[in-house]
Amino acid sequence: MKDSFDPRRFIRARRDGERHTGDDLRAFIRAVTAGTIETYQVTAWLMAAYFKPLDDEETFALTDAMMRSGTVIEFEDLPGPTVDKHSTGGVGDKISLPLAPVVAACGAYVPMISGRGLGHTGGTLDKLEAIPGFDPRLSVEAFKAQTRRLRLAFGAQTAELAPADGVLYSLRDVTATVETIPLIVASILSKKYASGTQAVVFDVKTGRGAFMRKLEDSRTLAERLIAVSQRMGKRASALVTAMDQPLGFAVGNALEVKESIDVLRGGGPADVRELTLALAVEMLVLAGIDATADAALDVFRAVVAAQGGDPRAVDDPGAHLARAPHLVPVPAPRSGFIASIDAYAVGEAIVALGGGRRAAADRIDPAAGIVFAKKVGDAVKAGETIAVAHAGDGRAVDPVVAALAEAIAIAEGRGEPGPLVRHRVV
Amino acid sequence: MKDSFDPRRFIRARRDGERHTGDDLRAFIRAVTAGTIETYQVTAWLMAAYFKPLDDEETFALTDAMMRSGTVIEFEDLPGPTVDKHSTGGVGDKISLPLAPVVAACGAYVPMISGRGLGHTGGTLDKLEAIPGFDPRLSVEAFKAQTRRLRLAFGAQTAELAPADGVLYSLRDVTATVETIPLIVASILSKKYASGTQAVVFDVKTGRGAFMRKLEDSRTLAERLIAVSQRMGKRASALVTAMDQPLGFAVGNALEVKESIDVLRGGGPADVRELTLALAVEMLVLAGIDATADAALDVFRAVVAAQGGDPRAVDDPGAHLARAPHLVPVPAPRSGFIASIDAYAVGEAIVALGGGRRAAADRIDPAAGIVFAKKVGDAVKAGETIAVAHAGDGRAVDPVVAALAEAIAIAEGRGEPGPLVRHRVV
Repeated sequence: MKDSFDPRRFIRARRDGERHTGDDLRAFIRAVTAGTIETYQVTAWLMAAYFKPLDDEETFALTDAMMRSGTVIEFEDLPGPTVDKHSTGGVGDKISLPLAPVVAACGAYVPMISGRGLGHTGGTLDKLEAIPGFDPRLSVEAFKAQTRRLRLAFGAQTAELAPADGVLYSLRDVTATVETIPLIVASILSKKYASGTQAVVFDVKTGRGAFMRKLEDSRTLAERLIAVSQRMGKRASALVTAMDQPLGFAVGNALEVKESIDVLRGGGPADVRELTLALAVEMLVLAGIDATADAALDVFRAVVAAQGGDPRAVDDPGAHLARAPHLVPVPAPRSGFIASIDAYAVGEAIVALGGGRRAAADRIDPAAGIVFAKKVGDAVKAGETIAVAHAGDGRAVDPVVAALAEAIAIAEGRGEPGPLVRHRVV
Repeated sequence: MKDSFDPRRFIRARRDGERHTGDDLRAFIRAVTAGTIETYQVTAWLMAAYFKPLDDEETFALTDAMMRSGTVIEFEDLPGPTVDKHSTGGVGDKISLPLAPVVAACGAYVPMISGRGLGHTGGTLDKLEAIPGFDPRLSVEAFKAQTRRLRLAFGAQTAELAPADGVLYSLRDVTATVETIPLIVASILSKKYASGTQAVVFDVKTGRGAFMRKLEDSRTLAERLIAVSQRMGKRASALVTAMDQPLGFAVGNALEVKESIDVLRGGGPADVRELTLALAVEMLVLAGIDATADAALDVFRAVVAAQGGDPRAVDDPGAHLARAPHLVPVPAPRSGFIASIDAYAVGEAIVALGGGRRAAADRIDPAAGIVFAKKVGDAVKAGETIAVAHAGDGRAVDPVVAALAEAIAIAEGRGEPGPLVRHRVV
């Protein structure tokens, strides 16, 4: 069976909506990983899979094969349960930073593998690297050892984990085959479960700053993530959460680290606190832990120190994180109430300020960002500062401020943002 | 505009069923021809075009761009009209050999570009090359000069004519994107009209020995070929013709040349004579010629001599064409009437005998073939010879004879084959 894989037959079967066997999907992923199938055949299959989506059983077989295409970390000798969180990506989404220490402080083991930001959304790795010295590039052994010792390690997505996903994703990106739920599910889960966690809570974003803008699409993605996770023998739940305006007041890597530390200290913006708590509850339920955390900041400080970061940045972020030389206010053009803040436009503004990437190889300025003084529902007076742009280059900031002013809608009457958690899938 | 072609946007537009502009399609074909678009993006587009077929206007723009991707032969100074025939491919389809001389003898100019056989169907070039010395690889200048002088030249499809089609076809072949009518139309027409003809009659085969087995599909292909031809400013008509049993009694290259010469001499099988006549009438109507031919054999002899072939093969084919050393009869297993002869199985048997190709680089034995003694509707007695296999290798012939016996159905009652010409499109 293994040697009889015929790419033409495989593509034709997908095209005609026939069901792939597990053997076929495994042979396909072996060929993708080994580079023994032509990329032009892979992309023809990807487009066929766009029009004839894989069912859950096929998605399971694909995901499992992708996960096994590289190292699969195993934690079988830990004294407690493992649990992780995955977000589909948003603007100002620094939730992993306060959340992981809180859950670890409650007794769960959190082997967290994160990625970098691309386009309008940020990435947890970029935020962590805004802490001077912090190194997320742990070896598998170091990642396992630190998880055991501190109950939390922040690792980086590497070519060692689910390499087939790396190949497939880079081809999907240039062939208009990203937006199809079974392939999104396989990409997320193959990487996530290669990190060895037994349980995952998914934060599926919805709204104009999310990859999926429609609630129904986000809900479908959440349901499929759970169904395929269960088929893989994992415990999983999902929250579908709002990503219309940015999360919190701060957007930008160093600024978000500071805001995360505010949350660990018991402060920070209400929406970041609410979502951190909601996700922590989900994670602890999955882990079967009934506890409250009171030492989350200590866990975070220890993790930062263990991974080479300056622990003083945790205790005094204002003094030890990068700061931008140019602070430019965005004034309200008229009086009224903030009706909406377009999270997608804010994400694009961060990229324009140098705080995000257009291409994977771009370098970023950790100090670049935006701090909002007002959020949706707040009253403003004409000329009052709604947000402050933090820029490394004073000359580049003017068009960004103009774009931010466009991204913020002011209405006569007061509107309230919708609930942060829109839907729960278990 | 020319520099702004973005393959990702182009693929996404096709995927979403948006209409391509002529500029986009021209830029795509420029990139395909120059190799400046990745093949994995080409195949993703091809699969999207399978699911979201191009309309006639898009197909026209694609075809025109493909035609102009290489040399476009021009015959503007000929004293009479040009007309050609194109067949979608069948088994025993030697019609071009008697047809082209007949039409040329009536006064039309026939610049005929043909291809080689692949898989179960034969190719006109392979048949012509069974004439000792015959060379179809004419330069463009020689092709034009011979067409002017003898009113007929048999040229070979080369990389010079519509090279974009060569690239696209080889990718379609390995990505299950062959079977979609707009791409089939663009492939056929871009090559055909690059040869400089002003009019074409299409012989669209239907039935189990054709690429399209269903009459409705063949009819749709015929209609689209005509519609796009007219959009290109060409005169065109089409006959949809039966390809259930092989055409004529002979299948195999040298055997079909001999049968073609029989037809030019006023003999030959009834079905080959009927189809040759029907297509000749169509071609002469398109060319606006009202004449009868009486010197078609002379035209053929002159063309064979002009292209280096031995003219004695035309006057005494039995003595001057290759002959197979092993002739093995296929006996009737029981008495009755021939109910059907599976043309597809016969085509595969020819390949097994060495008379066809599985891959484009395969060499063929011109003498290999099958001569039928009976066709559909004929009475047979048990043990009587239905067909004779002509083989170069006597050891290889047994499984072929067994397969042929399987391919021939004998019934108790007499059935008649349906009409040869099933449908006409103008």
